[in-house]
Amino acid sequence: MKKYLKYDEWCVIEDGFDPANHQASESIFSIGNGKMGQRANFEEKYTGDSLQGSYIAGVYYPDKTRVGWWKNGYPEYFAKVLNSPNWIGINVNIDGFELDLNTCKIDSFTRTLNMKEGFLQREFGATLNDGKKVLVKTRRFVSMADTENGAIRYSVTPINFSGKISFTPYIDGDIVNEDSNYDEQFWNVLDVQAAEGFAYLESQTKKSDFRCGFAMKYLIKLNEKPQKTNAEVVQLNKWVGNKVELEVKEGETASIEKYVGVTSSLNYTTGELKSKAEELASYACHKGFDQMFEDHRSKWAEKWVHSDIKIKGDVAAQQGIRFNIFHLNQTYTGEDERLNVGPKGFTGEKYGGTTYWDTEAYCVPFFLMTAPSEVTRQLLIYRYKHLPRAIENAAKLGFKDGAALYPMVTANGEECHNEWEITFEEIHRNGAIAFAIHNYIRHTGDKKYLEEYGLEVLVGISRFWSQRITFSEARQKYVMLGVTGPNEYENNINNNWYTNKMATWCLKYTQEALAHVKSAAPARYDELVAKMSFKEEETNRWQDIVDRMHFPYNEELKVFMQQDGFMDKEQVMADDLDPAERPINQHWSWDRILRSNFIKQADTLQGIYVLEEEFSDEEIERNFNFYEPRTVHESSLSPCVHSVMAAKIGRTEKAYEMYLRTSRLDLDDYNAEVHEGLHITSMAGTWMSIVEGFGGKRAYDEKLYLTPTIPNEWEEYAFRITFKGKDLEVRVNAKEVEIISHATLPAELFVYGKPVMVEPKKSITISR
Amino acid sequence: MKKYLKYDEWCVIEDGFDPANHQASESIFSIGNGKMGQRANFEEKYTGDSLQGSYIAGVYYPDKTRVGWWKNGYPEYFAKVLNSPNWIGINVNIDGFELDLNTCKIDSFTRTLNMKEGFLQREFGATLNDGKKVLVKTRRFVSMADTENGAIRYSVTPINFSGKISFTPYIDGDIVNEDSNYDEQFWNVLDVQAAEGFAYLESQTKKSDFRCGFAMKYLIKLNEKPQKTNAEVVQLNKWVGNKVELEVKEGETASIEKYVGVTSSLNYTTGELKSKAEELASYACHKGFDQMFEDHRSKWAEKWVHSDIKIKGDVAAQQGIRFNIFHLNQTYTGEDERLNVGPKGFTGEKYGGTTYWDTEAYCVPFFLMTAPSEVTRQLLIYRYKHLPRAIENAAKLGFKDGAALYPMVTANGEECHNEWEITFEEIHRNGAIAFAIHNYIRHTGDKKYLEEYGLEVLVGISRFWSQRITFSEARQKYVMLGVTGPNEYENNINNNWYTNKMATWCLKYTQEALAHVKSAAPARYDELVAKMSFKEEETNRWQDIVDRMHFPYNEELKVFMQQDGFMDKEQVMADDLDPAERPINQHWSWDRILRSNFIKQADTLQGIYVLEEEFSDEEIERNFNFYEPRTVHESSLSPCVHSVMAAKIGRTEKAYEMYLRTSRLDLDDYNAEVHEGLHITSMAGTWMSIVEGFGGKRAYDEKLYLTPTIPNEWEEYAFRITFKGKDLEVRVNAKEVEIISHATLPAELFVYGKPVMVEPKKSITISR
Repeated sequence: MKKYLKYDEWCVIEDGFDPANHQASESIFSIGNGKMGQRANFEEKYTGDSLQGSYIAGVYYPDKTRVGWWKNGYPEYFAKVLNSPNWIGINVNIDGFELDLNTCKIDSFTRTLNMKEGFLQREFGATLNDGKKVLVKTRRFVSMADTENGAIRYSVTPINFSGKISFTPYIDGDIVNEDSNYDEQFWNVLDVQAAEGFAYLESQTKKSDFRCGFAMKYLIKLNEKPQKTNAEVVQLNKWVGNKVELEVKEGETASIEKYVGVTSSLNYTTGELKSKAEELASYACHKGFDQMFEDHRSKWAEKWVHSDIKIKGDVAAQQGIRFNIFHLNQTYTGEDERLNVGPKGFTGEKYGGTTYWDTEAYCVPFFLMTAPSEVTRQLLIYRYKHLPRAIENAAKLGFKDGAALYPMVTANGEECHNEWEITFEEIHRNGAIAFAIHNYIRHTGDKKYLEEYGLEVLVGISRFWSQRITFSEARQKYVMLGVTGPNEYENNINNNWYTNKMATWCLKYTQEALAHVKSAAPARYDELVAKMSFKEEETNRWQDIVDRMHFPYNEELKVFMQQDGFMDKEQVMADDLDPAERPINQHWSWDRILRSNFIKQADTLQGIYVLEEEFSDEEIERNFNFYEPRTVHESSLSPCVHSVMAAKIGRTEKAYEMYLRTSRLDLDDYNAEVHEGLHITSMAGTWMSIVEGFGGKRAYDEKLYLTPTIPNEWEEYAFRITFKGKDLEVRVNAKEVEIISHATLPAELFVYGKPVMVEPKKSITISR
Repeated sequence: MKKYLKYDEWCVIEDGFDPANHQASESIFSIGNGKMGQRANFEEKYTGDSLQGSYIAGVYYPDKTRVGWWKNGYPEYFAKVLNSPNWIGINVNIDGFELDLNTCKIDSFTRTLNMKEGFLQREFGATLNDGKKVLVKTRRFVSMADTENGAIRYSVTPINFSGKISFTPYIDGDIVNEDSNYDEQFWNVLDVQAAEGFAYLESQTKKSDFRCGFAMKYLIKLNEKPQKTNAEVVQLNKWVGNKVELEVKEGETASIEKYVGVTSSLNYTTGELKSKAEELASYACHKGFDQMFEDHRSKWAEKWVHSDIKIKGDVAAQQGIRFNIFHLNQTYTGEDERLNVGPKGFTGEKYGGTTYWDTEAYCVPFFLMTAPSEVTRQLLIYRYKHLPRAIENAAKLGFKDGAALYPMVTANGEECHNEWEITFEEIHRNGAIAFAIHNYIRHTGDKKYLEEYGLEVLVGISRFWSQRITFSEARQKYVMLGVTGPNEYENNINNNWYTNKMATWCLKYTQEALAHVKSAAPARYDELVAKMSFKEEETNRWQDIVDRMHFPYNEELKVFMQQDGFMDKEQVMADDLDPAERPINQHWSWDRILRSNFIKQADTLQGIYVLEEEFSDEEIERNFNFYEPRTVHESSLSPCVHSVMAAKIGRTEKAYEMYLRTSRLDLDDYNAEVHEGLHITSMAGTWMSIVEGFGGKRAYDEKLYLTPTIPNEWEEYAFRITFKGKDLEVRVNAKEVEIISHATLPAELFVYGKPVMVEPKKSITISR
């Protein structure tokens, strides 16, 4: 664990520069707007260790898969998150010396991520080799209002000399991915052009043929006043920029404002890329930095209104939760159905692909409650659009007749992962994708979604389960052999309770959905039946599976069994592990982990979390008490579910302990891996810990329930949720719960099990 | 299946040249002498597809391991079978045209592997671009008598012209491994020297620093008469040779005899490499090709006396079995305890490492019966020498106190494999290694081996089992979780019957071995106890495991269960598979294979084969009838065990069917993979099919048993075996079994269960 950042309610602040922390900070201070994102790399040259990262949503590269031993079914190629041309660069030369924080003396240094207003700022003093001192201030943002624009203000003040200062703003297309499997460069540069005050670079990904245009304009100022300068145009094969030089007196401030327009072939024809990018850069330059920023800030203000969580009395927790919400909102805005929530968002290139089951299992609950329903709907349509490829993917593994297996990891619908025990066996993702449809409908009431898109996905998934589940003559029960559950510390197990549970849930829900569409929209039903070559007899086997599925259960302990063989394992508690051997995934060989009873992340408890209404409080408690002590929480997705479940059974202190493990995971770099990027999708879990955990928010039968509790460590907390279009604020302290309605219609909900009606723009207070 | 070779009792003959078969032929026609080996590459230049392969036993390279997803415990580097400098090369220029079978017209072509005398021969007629015709004859061998020498005779006869013919014999150090993971070259060339009539090249493997010296001398003849010629010395950085030119008249024959001496740092100091190699080349050149060949041939004659199997009435079977015996004898001669039987021998570079459990499970039975006992003893000592590394390997996986896990694949004692389900879980290899000690002793009576070497290995292995097996509180039985059995089509299963069986066998046998050494050699026992920090109490747990181990068993079917969950699988017979989907490992995704009941190779039956005396005939039959129909035999090691078991239960026709699948596997290239090399270790299985299968040879309680049967397709077969130093020939036909003693003492054995005594140099005939 590395704690080098200052606590602050709205900002993340790094005071003083330590190169050892720089790559972690590059991740933490990343900025993005759903369409593009940028690690907190320096604008000026930096020769120390750095992971360059500029990312454009939806742009990926199919890298050749590398494995030791090939298995049939592995993808030949898989999508890599792609480092794209560097548009932030501004080389700075001070009286003949290149500014580089790796070589000069750093007198002071502050890096600030302002989460409220969505910008990255640096202020530092540096002494160059020849003793000249400068003060530097920078601010940059990628605009939430003008989503194809980035803007940078960079200023230099000589402290103890007068001399020449030059700025060289540029766009660099000569970039690499650190994780390239075969040291390939992933981009061709198609076009570089420059004139005084302007530069343009157009780049094309190899194989996938995405094209991106980057245009820049800039303004030079001296003491805030625009300057006319002569620019030297520099144009190389893959690099293009301008060099401008100013005479600056001691105490004066030279600054540059760099405006960039970024276009991609996702949104424009290739013929438009250049003119549109240029237009965007000109537009931004004309609008000016302050106005651009003001528009951006006000978009952030709106987002915060709906998604903020306020915590009184615990600044570390306050900063932690806002950090998580901030990054989620930077990563996905729901404007484009082709995009998704990458596990590292725009903060690093680790992990192939951009879409995991994390989206449905963790992010959907967050967006459902904090954003307009269209945002979640886009995430669902994303999967709908990939249905044909999910059917192809299943066919590759021997399934037929429209059975769909969604990929474990994907960018474009094709599978990106290549460990057989995960790629082919961690099939519970299909369950999460189906459940998200239900989750969306129960929160929004939008049942029409089933006719339009949902039913096809559900039928494809149910067909998969129906074929994947086999009948055991020996047991006279249906079984599901050879799976990996959410607990990836068991592989190729039989009858994973969670997967069996989700599969039968899907088979039931699909039948309900079929019945609903058949009665609500008969014509559409007939159309879909024809399109899917669906036969109503298919559901006979589905129902038979529902009726006769085997669920491992221990009669003595009265707990659900994670898998058939779980009790054959030596039963050891995580607390009894030698701390020097933790995390076990860094200390134990894989076979040892697999043989142990240690659980990486919620598995049986994940099923209880998802389908909670099926279980009694006693069942939940017994299973929690059995599984939690065996869980090592070595996935960032683990503590949140345990936090919610602990709160559910009244173990608020345990819930708080689990909450702490999730909320500052990245800020405090628990696992020394933040330099690779942030755990974006698990950030939604932190939000869940508060709203569903402490807040006790549930949505059964399309009704809203709240059962708030509060950890002793907090004075008060407040969150805001949207349920069926009604916008409610919830404030909880030791004494009371206040529900404040921002809705235009009366809102009904249940607080501590009792019905409550909140009138529009009114509030109700309930004693705890 | 590719059938392009002619049937012949003693030779493999390729008549006519098809480039599409060339790489398969390069494997099939390989020659070797246990110390070095050579694929059947052409001496003259060949620009078509070819896999160059010269191999020196014991010389390997640690290539960087490549995996998609790293797991703790994988080896960083692993040993590659190493293509070493090419010493066979002779470029041939005919009146200005380079001889190259890829570019000239081939008028006739015969390639012959003479297995009786151990040489490779080619005869071909070729027409060059300018219409000139030549007849070429070549013969080469690597000497079984002078094991550091190779010799080549190469002659050219112009048919329709007179002109200049040049030979350029050379040694080429600029070679690559096709399977290099990172396109590295594995050799540095340290020294090249040449003079008229002589060349030398010294090469060093990177990282592992093996050094090899290659010296060549040669003689030039015209019409058999030695010629004095002026040689042009050619010396490049990594290539060295001589070029000699002759004027040859139509119908005359120009020939070259190339003699090579090969030394390596396994056997010489680096200072000696050159002088010894030169000495070897001079010695061979002086001895001459014919005498060299005669000495080599007589060594082969000796080998054939003891290892030949004669089959009357089936030339394809006769050729097949001799082909297998020939290659086994070329691969391993038992002269060096540092060497082993690589799965591809000297015929290809596929598979890292040189030693698999194949050695103990398949090759030991062959060498025990056909070679002096010292040969097998060397194979056992090989593992003894690796014991410290097996202990290190186990420690890497979390085992302690001297527990030893031998690697799945190795060249030097270190693990070379990197699939977790095999590397960490296919631990039954430990059982085969222990059993080989017992097997050796029961065939030779050499119990002293236990004191000298065997006991330490057994204790290390038993310590491993004792730690690897855990107690299931739920079952009140010991269990072994997370293993892969011999059937690699199931991974990470629990309680693989075979592995459990072998483990408890080890724990029993080690206790017997301890008791034996304690009573037979008390002082040595005390010494070993101290060396191993052995406590006699350790055996308490061992015995408890023996007493309370769980063995999966199906009460209804009365068969042993391959693993706990086997009967939950859909039970489908291999004959019901769509032939278009076979082999399933080329058509099915890995998860589908794992979920199926299809068995790659003998698993439960392997255990019954190894420990046959523990089971009744009815048990054997029931298990055979259950497992064989579920077996797809997609390992070259599978049919032989089924053949032996089928013969055991009187199903001779089934035994013959299985025999056919093993005996001509490579000659008929069943799986279209022979171009990569031969299946050397499974060749021993073919031998087992005859001697243990049809011959019914067994060795229980240090006594020899025979229960011969004969397939209808054969008139007669005969084999020779050595048992406790007694050399016996066995001849079987439909009517009788004849036992001919070549021993100097009376030999007792059991034929069809009845004791028989054969006097020295006498024979006995028993009616069938």
